[in-house]
Amino acid sequence: MCGIVGYIGNRDSVNVLIDGLEKLEYRGYDSAGIAILNDNNNIEMKKYKGRLAILKENIKEVNIKGNLGIGHTRWATHGEPSDRNSHPHLNPSKTISVVHNGIIENFNQLREELQGKGYEFLSETDTEVIPHLIDYYYNGNLLDAIKKAIERLEGAFAIVVMSKEEPEKLIAVRKDSPLIIGVGEGENFIASDIPAVINYTRKIYLLENEEMAVLEKDNISIMDFKGNVIEKEIYNVTWDISQAEKGGYDHFMIKEIFEQPKALRDTISPRITKDGSIKLDNINITKEYIKNINKIYIVACGTAYHAGIVGKSLIEKYAKIPVLTDVASEFRYNNPFIDEKTLMIVVSQSGETADTLAALRLAKEKGARTLALCNVVGSSIAREADDVFYTWAGPEIAVASTKAYTTQVAAFIIIALYLGKLNENISDSEYNTILKEVIKLPEKVDYILNDIFKVKDIASNMMNQDDIFFIGRGIDYNVAMEGSLKLKEVSYIHSEAMAAGELKHGTLALIEEGTPVIALATQDNLYDKMISNIREVKARGGYIIAVSKEGNTSIEKSADKVIYIPDTMDDIIGILSIIPLQLISYYVALGKNCDVDKPRNLAKSVTVE
Amino acid sequence: MCGIVGYIGNRDSVNVLIDGLEKLEYRGYDSAGIAILNDNNNIEMKKYKGRLAILKENIKEVNIKGNLGIGHTRWATHGEPSDRNSHPHLNPSKTISVVHNGIIENFNQLREELQGKGYEFLSETDTEVIPHLIDYYYNGNLLDAIKKAIERLEGAFAIVVMSKEEPEKLIAVRKDSPLIIGVGEGENFIASDIPAVINYTRKIYLLENEEMAVLEKDNISIMDFKGNVIEKEIYNVTWDISQAEKGGYDHFMIKEIFEQPKALRDTISPRITKDGSIKLDNINITKEYIKNINKIYIVACGTAYHAGIVGKSLIEKYAKIPVLTDVASEFRYNNPFIDEKTLMIVVSQSGETADTLAALRLAKEKGARTLALCNVVGSSIAREADDVFYTWAGPEIAVASTKAYTTQVAAFIIIALYLGKLNENISDSEYNTILKEVIKLPEKVDYILNDIFKVKDIASNMMNQDDIFFIGRGIDYNVAMEGSLKLKEVSYIHSEAMAAGELKHGTLALIEEGTPVIALATQDNLYDKMISNIREVKARGGYIIAVSKEGNTSIEKSADKVIYIPDTMDDIIGILSIIPLQLISYYVALGKNCDVDKPRNLAKSVTVE
Repeated sequence: MCGIVGYIGNRDSVNVLIDGLEKLEYRGYDSAGIAILNDNNNIEMKKYKGRLAILKENIKEVNIKGNLGIGHTRWATHGEPSDRNSHPHLNPSKTISVVHNGIIENFNQLREELQGKGYEFLSETDTEVIPHLIDYYYNGNLLDAIKKAIERLEGAFAIVVMSKEEPEKLIAVRKDSPLIIGVGEGENFIASDIPAVINYTRKIYLLENEEMAVLEKDNISIMDFKGNVIEKEIYNVTWDISQAEKGGYDHFMIKEIFEQPKALRDTISPRITKDGSIKLDNINITKEYIKNINKIYIVACGTAYHAGIVGKSLIEKYAKIPVLTDVASEFRYNNPFIDEKTLMIVVSQSGETADTLAALRLAKEKGARTLALCNVVGSSIAREADDVFYTWAGPEIAVASTKAYTTQVAAFIIIALYLGKLNENISDSEYNTILKEVIKLPEKVDYILNDIFKVKDIASNMMNQDDIFFIGRGIDYNVAMEGSLKLKEVSYIHSEAMAAGELKHGTLALIEEGTPVIALATQDNLYDKMISNIREVKARGGYIIAVSKEGNTSIEKSADKVIYIPDTMDDIIGILSIIPLQLISYYVALGKNCDVDKPRNLAKSVTVE
Repeated sequence: MCGIVGYIGNRDSVNVLIDGLEKLEYRGYDSAGIAILNDNNNIEMKKYKGRLAILKENIKEVNIKGNLGIGHTRWATHGEPSDRNSHPHLNPSKTISVVHNGIIENFNQLREELQGKGYEFLSETDTEVIPHLIDYYYNGNLLDAIKKAIERLEGAFAIVVMSKEEPEKLIAVRKDSPLIIGVGEGENFIASDIPAVINYTRKIYLLENEEMAVLEKDNISIMDFKGNVIEKEIYNVTWDISQAEKGGYDHFMIKEIFEQPKALRDTISPRITKDGSIKLDNINITKEYIKNINKIYIVACGTAYHAGIVGKSLIEKYAKIPVLTDVASEFRYNNPFIDEKTLMIVVSQSGETADTLAALRLAKEKGARTLALCNVVGSSIAREADDVFYTWAGPEIAVASTKAYTTQVAAFIIIALYLGKLNENISDSEYNTILKEVIKLPEKVDYILNDIFKVKDIASNMMNQDDIFFIGRGIDYNVAMEGSLKLKEVSYIHSEAMAAGELKHGTLALIEEGTPVIALATQDNLYDKMISNIREVKARGGYIIAVSKEGNTSIEKSADKVIYIPDTMDDIIGILSIIPLQLISYYVALGKNCDVDKPRNLAKSVTVE
């Protein structure tokens, strides 16, 4: 979260920065700001609380010009969203300007120290210590001052610095928050993510952790924090910017929901050979290795974690290896059992999620083999993991993840079958049967998306609800968790998912006459138990919206409304049952006039802990 | 849930039944009813929706007399709470009367079958198929008819049957739902739980699963479902009924909160010898055994599950054995990895929780050693497990569990240290240091309970809230889950607990200006990370009520209110940090005029799935 962009060259930097920030707004939209070195060699800064549009509106009237500049779109952590707390931040004499993504954990201590030296602070942010520190250490050499300053910083930071004293350069530092360099001709770019620069260049340097870079118009030097020069290869971007645009849909979220058949096909097909077996190109897990491990960890955050818990069920069932799951922010502090007999699987759409990246590093440190499920090629997590399974979902822009989830679940189905085959815990016939069903999933998703009238109708009656519950058993419960998260994220309705059998141990007290309860009953082997749980809720007055397989019409005796999805095997039906829940979230949010693609308080690609 | 009582003897059975039902009302209070064989040898039945008090009020005016009767207090599962759906239920000719606790899973099919034979149904319950089935099979011998009927029943059931055709007996059947027999002189009793009969006799037969009994005035015969006679030993109750009464407090819940110092002392002290080491009387886990297992499962429901996840952290840390946790209703269907190298730990206050009992049985079947944490001596789970750790909390009557939780957590601390010592993964000095701190916990709880003014004040400002969030990291997060459940159960406020680092992956969207967020920041090693998370919430307008250790005053910079608890070690502080959360729940519920001890929709001792 927080998007950074910087430019040095001959163009009007304001346009380049605004254009870049537009592509990065998914990373935060609490405020936006730019700082330009103008033609009089002064730093001119404009920054406003709210969306980028407000900044754009405000700079229309003033004429800022300059060929060097930095920009920032903020997701607030320290200090409320406000003009004052917006980036860039300056040193007291306004000669140094800084944008920052991350959290400086020792900022309180640094702030007190700097105040003791007479520095005044204009904001409540952690960031403002950075220009002040650089100022404090500045002795005619900006790079040296920055090196000294970052030695003092604890936490995560991607920063870009410019100074009027050294107007021919931008200096960037990366620690635990992503940065990429766009390589131009007579100009260079720096940004948090590739889309910010793709309109200008397709040649990219991926900055690694604890690297810094000095960008000049005609030169880029990359070095470690000690100053040792690092040679890098250019990464050439092959995908098309149009994939990251809305193309006729009102919102990215609904566009991405409808892209799921294609995303699933792209993710599944290349992994299944003509003779019906699985082939994984970037994964070097051997039979010997898999027979020697004693457990798997799956660690992720948010939606990716929800895909991970489906993965747990599948791997445990097909490969018969115990799987422990944890959210990444908890994992590191839970004394995890990681050693060389552990396979660590991490899941992250962006491949930049800070907590997940930290978990991955911890696992590597402890000797585990690591496998990443990522959507963004070349992202930090993808690069640092031993093996990568890419979900080929294409760029996901909406903050609420949809196609990333279903492709992650598809990835887990394939991985579970692959591991089960490798360690000989799944029979050939079961393997073949499941794979045949997996191949049919994209068209079944298409089938659901072709008739969404009923789902829209159900959504239209849910807009005024304060509380909605999701219940299910087994994989239905896992999907319920994701359905509930989706609804929370975009509609701001307080929803909650419960294991259906666990409801009566407390949460049932919240069910009143008419409380909507979305009950997933898609698993054949749990259908009767689920009907009992639905009746328990019904007996308390709950209004039941059930999701079940076509043909299971007996559920109509217990439920108020039923959404039917096509039949498939219990284990893989999560990819179908989530679709109506995604649609409900979208249409409820739409009906409530929520900003669907940019929900309040959130940001995509969470690069702080 | 659902309480059953039956009487045969020379007393006025109405009084005995009502008295018994009063003690069983914790098991459900949607409706209550009795059926008496009156002096004209007719079955007279009274049953009403609502609390037992309504039944009592209604029978005041009518004069029912008889020496044989059955009674029931209901927690509705199939069919809404209503007079019609109340128990007892009758056969069409009103000669047979039945009370039932459990769920008949194939009731729909049986109902259709019986309707086909001309049977009319007056209720929507699953239970009504039972008297009709018995009627259908009745051919002059009630016992035979019942045997045939129960062969047809799937699911869980404790039932008691009386018939005017055979007025000298009561017949009881137990499958998966508890029943006990009170042995009198010239009279006998049957009930779901001991308190229902303790005023009349302290001699008890504990009916085992798939046993049935015929009670006459002067005789009790117990047999299996095939009719083979079973000899049983009398179990003598040693505890006092006064322990199960309110004694000056307004509610059982607050009484039980204040009983925690004693409950903790009673649970901890007998396990720690004078020389400062742990001695566990009923646990025969050997060094060799523990070195040979490769994992532990902890399975439970509701509050007991929340104690279990604290147990996971502690066992993993001290004994270095991987622990998998699951809620019991999910566990059985999740392909669990149970074999002879697994130690299965189940937790249940009542020892009768249906899902937990089923999980225990599954684990035994698969060859695991089983250890139960129970509060009720002689309960099904305690009897069936290989080892038992009793929490000596005394009878817990309030539906919302408090002292059971803290004593369960204390039990886990002791077990974790014990296992760690046994497999030599904890140093003597650490072991001794922690034990010394554990012994001090009861007095620290007392200290918190001695000054609850601030907590009451905070609660008084929370009554009108619709949504409240609890956040924490590590053990703080585990405690947050229990705090949130407590608040839901008794105040009906939709609260939710989140791992503090996970909030930004979606749920943060629900934070508005003034949304109360209870933030636990009691762990020294997570304190700084937690402060960052608190600031994230604060930046979104959240109103922060923090719980932290005395001395950690720097938290006041970030939180709106701070509740301080005494200092102790990070690992065991959950026993202290939960106390203010229990109190907040109680006082919020009190302020909202909720029925604190009997929250809507809930029941204690959940004996259905």
